[in-house]
Formats: sequence, structure tokens, C-alpha cells
Amino acid sequence: MKRDNDQGDRGYSLAIGIPAETETPAVLVDRGILQANIDHMQALAQGGRLKLRPHVKTHKSVKVARRQLAAGAWGFTASKVDEAIVFIEAGLPSVTLAYPMTVRGKLDRVLGVARQHDCNLRLIVDSVTGLDLIAARAAAVNYRPGVFIKIDVGLRRCGRRPDDPLILALAEGITQTGHLDFRGLLSHAGHAYGAADRQTAARIAEAERQQMVGLADRLRGAGFDVPEVSVGSTPTVLAAPRFDGLTEIRPGNYVFMDQTPLRLGLIPPSRVALSVLSTVVSRNNRYAIVDAGSKTLSSDRGAHGVDGLTGYGVAFALDEADEREKPLMIAKLSEEHGFVMADGHRLPPGARVQIFPNHACPVVNLSHQLHIWNGRAVETWAVDAAGCVR
Amino acid sequence: MKRDNDQGDRGYSLAIGIPAETETPAVLVDRGILQANIDHMQALAQGGRLKLRPHVKTHKSVKVARRQLAAGAWGFTASKVDEAIVFIEAGLPSVTLAYPMTVRGKLDRVLGVARQHDCNLRLIVDSVTGLDLIAARAAAVNYRPGVFIKIDVGLRRCGRRPDDPLILALAEGITQTGHLDFRGLLSHAGHAYGAADRQTAARIAEAERQQMVGLADRLRGAGFDVPEVSVGSTPTVLAAPRFDGLTEIRPGNYVFMDQTPLRLGLIPPSRVALSVLSTVVSRNNRYAIVDAGSKTLSSDRGAHGVDGLTGYGVAFALDEADEREKPLMIAKLSEEHGFVMADGHRLPPGARVQIFPNHACPVVNLSHQLHIWNGRAVETWAVDAAGCVR
Repeated sequence: MKRDNDQGDRGYSLAIGIPAETETPAVLVDRGILQANIDHMQALAQGGRLKLRPHVKTHKSVKVARRQLAAGAWGFTASKVDEAIVFIEAGLPSVTLAYPMTVRGKLDRVLGVARQHDCNLRLIVDSVTGLDLIAARAAAVNYRPGVFIKIDVGLRRCGRRPDDPLILALAEGITQTGHLDFRGLLSHAGHAYGAADRQTAARIAEAERQQMVGLADRLRGAGFDVPEVSVGSTPTVLAAPRFDGLTEIRPGNYVFMDQTPLRLGLIPPSRVALSVLSTVVSRNNRYAIVDAGSKTLSSDRGAHGVDGLTGYGVAFALDEADEREKPLMIAKLSEEHGFVMADGHRLPPGARVQIFPNHACPVVNLSHQLHIWNGRAVETWAVDAAGCVR
Repeated sequence: MKRDNDQGDRGYSLAIGIPAETETPAVLVDRGILQANIDHMQALAQGGRLKLRPHVKTHKSVKVARRQLAAGAWGFTASKVDEAIVFIEAGLPSVTLAYPMTVRGKLDRVLGVARQHDCNLRLIVDSVTGLDLIAARAAAVNYRPGVFIKIDVGLRRCGRRPDDPLILALAEGITQTGHLDFRGLLSHAGHAYGAADRQTAARIAEAERQQMVGLADRLRGAGFDVPEVSVGSTPTVLAAPRFDGLTEIRPGNYVFMDQTPLRLGLIPPSRVALSVLSTVVSRNNRYAIVDAGSKTLSSDRGAHGVDGLTGYGVAFALDEADEREKPLMIAKLSEEHGFVMADGHRLPPGARVQIFPNHACPVVNLSHQLHIWNGRAVETWAVDAAGCVR
């Protein structure tokens, strides 16, 4: 992925020569790195004999999803009903809505759309309330979704702990109703985003694998068919020493990458596909003020509320070759302004910077458009599911 | 604003009885409080013989803007070109784009739309680069915008410090070209969002007033007509001891209010109009997990990068009367999940909570819709300028 002229010690791939008429702020995606990231994850999945079911929350883009599908993805994962519906209506064949359904109206909508588009929709449950709701609504609309039991492997968010006796009761409940197709177990080790280093992320991945495979075996011992054991998260998938007993991975962030996999040493900067092109709008003796603030970069320091990163992204002066090498810190953000620490740099009003944000996922959601850069020209892709909060 | 049945010691106005079919997460606006906030700020402006030019970045809603106009607002303030264009195209009569223009394409677009709609557009400058650009483009499109010099009264963001000799040069440059209408001075004391208390916010407001009025007098002494001296920010306007010599205020947040004016003791909780209705989707022994995360509430701890607040908002259990009084802290956020500290509360899956977020402005931008609650029914208003990053 190394190129001749646009990569120095900094290691990031910069959009040198991007046309001046590209209005800022613009969320840039390096098309070559995007495709390489898609291909790399597909190869990793196939090497582990795993199905890859990417999470769409990162890109929210049908065009990116189609590229993942073309590379070999088995289906998709979504967080919210409206997000899932965008991809179902676009004709994608299989969507796991990896979010507990406890609101009837939303559940009815997604079941209805899945039935209408003949999409293989899969849901998760971690409570009797949730199970009773999806069993009743699936029967009411005459559609049979797949259902996973969500397992909490350490994030302390959704899911049952692996030793919770409720898991057996939920498996019985799912299999006993005729309207649900029991698919198995699903987890997300999001606490890996807060890991100190690659070794810790690897330990979290292996602990998740052992918990999930052990639980699947216990369920099989109790007489249940457990066809799928699905895990997720870009850091754990990239760090994991082995995948035996798992059937599926659901990473999302890997298509773009950001400061978390970098901080954990899981990728080099040349694998980061997403950045924000921004223009200096004002200059004082401390900061270059740029036109990307928290309504473009988000206020995220990491993911899952982890404050693991300093500042709000790394910036590079783009237009002057002798200013390009030194990374510049985004010290703080107003809603529409970024404060770039610019001591020793000119960066006058009108100068452009390229910012590599802390967390790619909220940046895409905020901007509604991706500017796909192929080294010569910019193409615009819609963020089809931007703002899908429900 | 106190009501019979929906307000206890907590002081916030809760949406008791909001219909169960309101899908969550939903950004709620209490219609009565919204109107009272609009009326209160208008009365404050009129009491100080000031024009009120609300900032639209908070609501991004043409319907809210029309209510501000009906109450007596003189015009509007916007941060971004695409945001300004939404309100100009909606027919609003006067918009100050309080953001330095250093990108030609964006400037041409907003000048073109302003000319087409016969809108009184006003711009700001704080550099020779910016002045040269707007002078050239105004001449090129044959439209004469108003122009303010942006003054930095302490935020260290955009603007010239009041003692900067460039101010005189900019005033000369603006008045000497025939294509620009010099309007005067404009400031934003955003550092008041980081004030420790009301007294500090009041001192910041009075320091801003003295700097701005003193500078206006010096410019007048040098022979310039300075028709307007415009200041902004909800905290400073609410805390300010006096307004002599100022002509205009540009607060934005006041229509909804949030945890910053509360923390500063500038308002009681009953003045907070904006909240997020959310549903518990999972429960563990530490947290109730709700369906509002950082893609709904944002990761903001305050505004302008101020980490002045603990957690990500204050929540109340909504459905059970005996659980309603005690405020619950949002301890952390994933993108689509909020972690509510719920020790001693039942809050099972399906229970609803009402969350009062840290910072109202990014919440509105993320959700694309406002659910206007009048105590009996919910009406949906569009967030017309959501996602206008450019």
C-alpha cells in the first residue's frame, strides 16, 4: 500500500493533490485502502474457516456493503431497526440485527420489511421479555426470524453471562415456539477497545472464544442444535490467536480503521482509509482553527466510552511539502471548529489539513457523504443510513 | 411552568403519559417550555434594548426559527454555509453567517442563494485573506453583504484580540471596497461554557462588553461608523449584569437549554425543554442498558471541549411513579447503547427513561427529528439542517 510521493515517516496515506474545489470539511475515503481492508478481512475470515458478516454501523453505505458482499461477505450486521431496513430494502440477502428488541413498533417494522424483501433476518435475545415479544410478533406477522442468545463476555452491556442459567431457559423457549429459528450464540467483546496493547486484546479474544465455545458445547450436551457461534469487533478479530469452534465474525470498523487499532498496534497507519479534509479558517498564536469540529469529528476519545486517546485526532498540513511530515494534534473542538496545535507551522487561513479522527464510525454518521479518493479524482457516495437512531 | 402531576423535587418537567407508540430513542421537546424560553429571551433582549438574532445551530429547524421570528427576533445566526442556505431558502429575512469564509466554493454558493432570495446576508472577517476573498467574490456576483470584524474576547478561537492593529486595517479594507457594508464588531465568549459558576460567567460577560464597547468607541474615534456591536452565547447573556453599548445578542442554546446553564445556576431544571425518550433493552446487575448511545446523545461532556460535566446526562425512570424522583446517571456510552447506573431500581427491559443530555445542540443534529410534546400528543418536526457540515 506504500506509494511514491505521498507517504513519509508519518506512514499515513495523504490525499496529496486532491482538487482544491473539494469543499471542506469532507470525509475522505482512500479507495485503494478501503478495498485492501475489505480483502484483508475476507482473507482472514476464510483462513479461519469463518463466515464474515460485517457490521454496517461503520459505513452505513450500501455501496460499501456491496463491495463487502462481492469480496465474499456472508451477510451483514446492523444495530438499529432503521439501519437494518436501509440494507434490507437495498436487497442485501441476510441481516443480523444484533440489538435486543424491546419496543414492539420497531420490531414489527423490521419483521414486515424482512418478510416483504424475503431477507433472512436474525435477531438476538437476552431476556424473557425480549423472547416473549419476538415470539409473539413473529407469529403475528407470519415470519420466522433466526434468533441468537446474546452472551456477555465481559463488556457488561447486553447479554447473559456464560454461567447464567437463564441461557438454557432462553434456548428452550426459542426452540419450543414454532416461529423462531434458533441460530446459536452471539457475543461482542467491545471491552477490547479499552485494552492497553495487542497482547491484552489477544487475551480478551481468546477468553471470548473459550467462553463461547464452552457454552456452545454445554448447550449441545443438553440436546440443543447450536449451528452458529458468532463473535465480533475489529480489535479482537485482528488480535485473536485462534478461531477454533467459532463460525462467524462480525467486525465493522476494519473497512476504514482509526486510532484504536493503531493504538493497539494491530495495523500500521497506511491501513487507515478514512480521514477528514479540512481548511484553516482562522489563525492565532496558539492554534490553527479548522472547519471540522465535534459536529464533524465527534467528541469521541475512543469507542465504548473509553477515553484511551489524547486529543481529537491527528492532522497533517497538506498543501506544503515541507510541512507535511509532522503530525499535529487536535487539542479541542467546538461544534464547528477544531483547534489544531500549530506551533512552528504557518498554516494560514485557507491552508488545508488532513485529519485522521479518533473514531471513524461517528464521523461517517455525522457527514452524510463519503468522498471516495482514488489518487486522481473524487467520487461521492451517500451514507444511506446516516441518522438512523431508531 | 410548574405543573401538577409531573414534577417532583427533581424539578425537571417529565413527559409522563407520553404515548407508548412513540418509538425510541426520540428527541423530545416540551412545547410549553420551548415557547417560554423563546419569550423569556425576547423579553430579556427588549429589556436591554438589544436586537435578538438567535443562533440556529441549536435547533436547525425552520419551524423553531419561525417561532423565534414571531416573538420578535430580528434575524438569525448560522455557523455553516449549508446551514445558512436552509434558512435563507426557507425565506427568513436576514442571516449572519458567523464563520470566517476561506473556501471560495462555499462562499460563492451562499452569496448566490442570498442574492436570489433577497436575503440580508452578513459575514465575518478576521484576516486579510478572508477580507480579500469576500471582497472579490461579492464583486464577482454583484451582491453586497454586511461584514463584521470578528473579535476574540478570550475563547482563543477565531477573531482578532481587541488590541490587534489589524482591526483598523480590516475596517479600512471593508469600508474602502464598494462591495461590502461594514456592520461593526462581533464576538462570542464561548469560554463562559467552562466557567465555574454564575459569577464567573457574569464577569466574562462584563469583560466582553467592556472590550467590545471600548473597541467600538476607538473605531468611531478613528472615523468609522460602527452601527452594530454584537455578542453571543446563552450563558453570558443570562449572566450579564448590563448591556450598555451593545446592539445585538446571538444566543442559540436557550431555546432548549441543557446541563451547562443548569450547572452554572442560570436556570432551574424546569426550563430544560429538550430530552431524549429511551427504552431499556437489557439489564445486568450494574446497569440498565438503554437504546440511546453516543450516536443519539453525542459524547459531549459540555460545549467547546469543556469536560465540565460528569457522565453523559441525567435520566429518570418514566413509567413507575415511585421510581421517578431519583436522578440516574448515564455512566458511559457505546454508539447505540447508554449505560444507566440503576442500583436499587428495577428498570427491566421495556421500561422507559427520560434523559436530559449534557449538550442539546449535537443531540438535535444527530436525530434529524424533534418530537414536540404538548402534554397530550406528539407532533414531529424536521431538523431541516441536520448534517450540514459544510
